[in-house]
Amino acid sequence: MLQKYPSVLLENAVNEFAKLPGVGRKTALRLALHSLKRTSEEVESFGLSIIQLRKEIQYCCICHNICDTEICNICADPSRDASLVCVVENIKEVMAIENTAQFRGLYHVLGGIISPMDGIGPNDLQIESLVERVKTGAVKEIILALSTTMEGDTTNFYIYRKMNGLDVKISVIARGVSIGDEIEYADEITLGRSILNRVNFSDTLKL
Amino acid sequence: MLQKYPSVLLENAVNEFAKLPGVGRKTALRLALHSLKRTSEEVESFGLSIIQLRKEIQYCCICHNICDTEICNICADPSRDASLVCVVENIKEVMAIENTAQFRGLYHVLGGIISPMDGIGPNDLQIESLVERVKTGAVKEIILALSTTMEGDTTNFYIYRKMNGLDVKISVIARGVSIGDEIEYADEITLGRSILNRVNFSDTLKL
Repeated sequence: MLQKYPSVLLENAVNEFAKLPGVGRKTALRLALHSLKRTSEEVESFGLSIIQLRKEIQYCCICHNICDTEICNICADPSRDASLVCVVENIKEVMAIENTAQFRGLYHVLGGIISPMDGIGPNDLQIESLVERVKTGAVKEIILALSTTMEGDTTNFYIYRKMNGLDVKISVIARGVSIGDEIEYADEITLGRSILNRVNFSDTLKL
Repeated sequence: MLQKYPSVLLENAVNEFAKLPGVGRKTALRLALHSLKRTSEEVESFGLSIIQLRKEIQYCCICHNICDTEICNICADPSRDASLVCVVENIKEVMAIENTAQFRGLYHVLGGIISPMDGIGPNDLQIESLVERVKTGAVKEIILALSTTMEGDTTNFYIYRKMNGLDVKISVIARGVSIGDEIEYADEITLGRSILNRVNFSDTLKL
């Protein structure tokens, strides 16, 4: 049903809010009316912060993570192991892995995964720059940390083929039963993979 | 858990998105990252539309509905019945009633209802201006269309007392079983009220 708005300004704001992912027209109206209850300064700070984000954000020239400078904090940190590179889809995964505090190497953000259904091919991703990075000889191991989906597996295999002939170890994150999960509720594929990829128990004691 | 953001600009935008009602930090991050996928023009249009809404919106000097001019479209419409005023809490209710296309009178937006728990008293609402409006003699009937809650009932009664001695009919919207509802599932209070407020069947045939 076509909703009549009492004000063109309100209608514009609702239309703009409704363009956000997961926001329908009812929520958009609620968000727009909420803006009217805030101070002018608060609303200005909201709007400008997003415009500024879009206009001034930079991408690290080494790992393609977002940053405020030419080289991101992680790549610029001399205490991190530059010979170990974790390959991820997006910025969110960098943040998730950083939050584990288990990884002291660097990253390489592909910007997505190969997905013919969405029209995303290898040339749309930062794969060539990963090959160049490995060719410098500074990288001893790359860890593929992509989604455990068909698209992720395809991208893993594509990168594996691209590294053919280069002196680099290629590993992939372990797939298995999540910690805290009960075996009886684990899905069959994951459980099967966890048996095939079993590790020496005494090795786990060192973790 | 304190999340580390790779960019101060991103962190600012996430903080701002997280201030919206119903938006947590995870959603805020998703919205901020989504902004990076849009064009600069799109993001600018988003941000500015909300800033403009807040800065340039006006409130109708008669009914206090929001509008782009001094007097809103509804109050300025000579084809509407100025002797009939529907009293509502907020702008949303004006829009909801307008969408029914059943009402040809004017509105009076209180800006909330009396709610001591939230610190909202009669003086925080547009009640005095409603009394002034009735005192001009142009209003023959006011229809109270507030929430059917204790706060709504309190506000109805407060307005009723304020109109004491003024030559105006005060009516309240009908409360009863929703159209399309089955009687067995209607709540007891609503069902009881619908029996007390029963109407002459032949009158309903005219609707």
